Amino acid sequence: MPDQTAYPQTPRTIPTRSRDRAHYDRESVHAILDGAYLCHLGFVRDGAPVVLPTLYARVGERLYVHGSTGSRPLRAAATAPDDSGIDVCLTVTHVDGLVLARSAFHHSLNYRSVLVHGRAVDVRDEDERRIALDAIVDQVVPGRSADSRPANAKELAATAVIALDLREVSAKVRTGGPNDEPEDLALPYWTGVVPVQQRYGTPEPAEDLAEGIAVPEYVSRLVG
Amino acid sequence: MPDQTAYPQTPRTIPTRSRDRAHYDRESVHAILDGAYLCHLGFVRDGAPVVLPTLYARVGERLYVHGSTGSRPLRAAATAPDDSGIDVCLTVTHVDGLVLARSAFHHSLNYRSVLVHGRAVDVRDEDERRIALDAIVDQVVPGRSADSRPANAKELAATAVIALDLREVSAKVRTGGPNDEPEDLALPYWTGVVPVQQRYGTPEPAEDLAEGIAVPEYVSRLVG
Repeated sequence: MPDQTAYPQTPRTIPTRSRDRAHYDRESVHAILDGAYLCHLGFVRDGAPVVLPTLYARVGERLYVHGSTGSRPLRAAATAPDDSGIDVCLTVTHVDGLVLARSAFHHSLNYRSVLVHGRAVDVRDEDERRIALDAIVDQVVPGRSADSRPANAKELAATAVIALDLREVSAKVRTGGPNDEPEDLALPYWTGVVPVQQRYGTPEPAEDLAEGIAVPEYVSRLVG
Repeated sequence: MPDQTAYPQTPRTIPTRSRDRAHYDRESVHAILDGAYLCHLGFVRDGAPVVLPTLYARVGERLYVHGSTGSRPLRAAATAPDDSGIDVCLTVTHVDGLVLARSAFHHSLNYRSVLVHGRAVDVRDEDERRIALDAIVDQVVPGRSADSRPANAKELAATAVIALDLREVSAKVRTGGPNDEPEDLALPYWTGVVPVQQRYGTPEPAEDLAEGIAVPEYVSRLVG
């Protein structure tokens, strides 16, 4: 019986190599998406690829990306014939470690990544647009959207939101140490993993912040 | 007189908005590229975009990416008619801070990114291939390529290398605090920047590392 909680495998979500690193279960995919806020969004313009770094949020089985209504991919999605959207590939990557093998060939990274293929469509429903915009703020700093001024009508009108459903999705994960060849084990080179971590520094209040407004608890929690 | 040290501006390297954040000088572009080792490489497959996280290196005005000869974009570049390569967009992004404004609308990231557009071509010259492979190892850990076993003939034959010249290039940089609207300055929300940093953890030796092989100086220097 197929795993009902897994995304179906398709020709473009099955990697050409290291297939043991590919994962299709929702839990793995969601965890990787929920642990980040920056994606690299690919689209095609005049036949050539464009890759832009941008914020995103996951709400259930949909991803949202926002931007200016003048932004190229968002304008393209909004003006697509029959509201069919545009083809995108949204990629999220965490780097967890540098893998130093004895051989140059077996050097690698420990990482977790998710690729989402599909059609990104313009979101026009006002309620869904507000949910998406709150989610994007909260993806970066959980709890923040409730502690800031919501977008007003003018700001909403200047902002485009696109949605991408989680249908054609794969995760790729590498963990562990180097995979050296048996004949290299006696070589005199140090070998192992250098962990890579992202951390937050001490919050820096804006110069014009009024006295008496402390760093919120949800920011302190994030910074740890 | 045009700045001889800047990359020419083209329709696809001039952003539709926040043009003051765009930079075209070689010094800015090189600094952003040299401070990272992971890029997101976009290419077009069957008319749709694909974005893969991968390692890269800069050598002068060329970028190199490597991979298995079976990898889709590398195979496409190797088999392109007239050795003309394939269209790619190679994007490198550093996140420097979370910008928390009083209004949800003005939330932002401090970041530095570079987009390189162009044709990625298969590298066949053996000397250039070796230079590229060493450079990719050293981009991740400077000094490492000289302290590991170089690729042998079999490994070289299994590895494809593509080159992308720095011709159509732009950097985009956001720094500083939030840009709130004047009418929002009295709102009671904390506002400022949460710095984001990447750091390295304590190197973890491989389980089969022989006793007496210490962490090399170039790794200690990286970890700091």
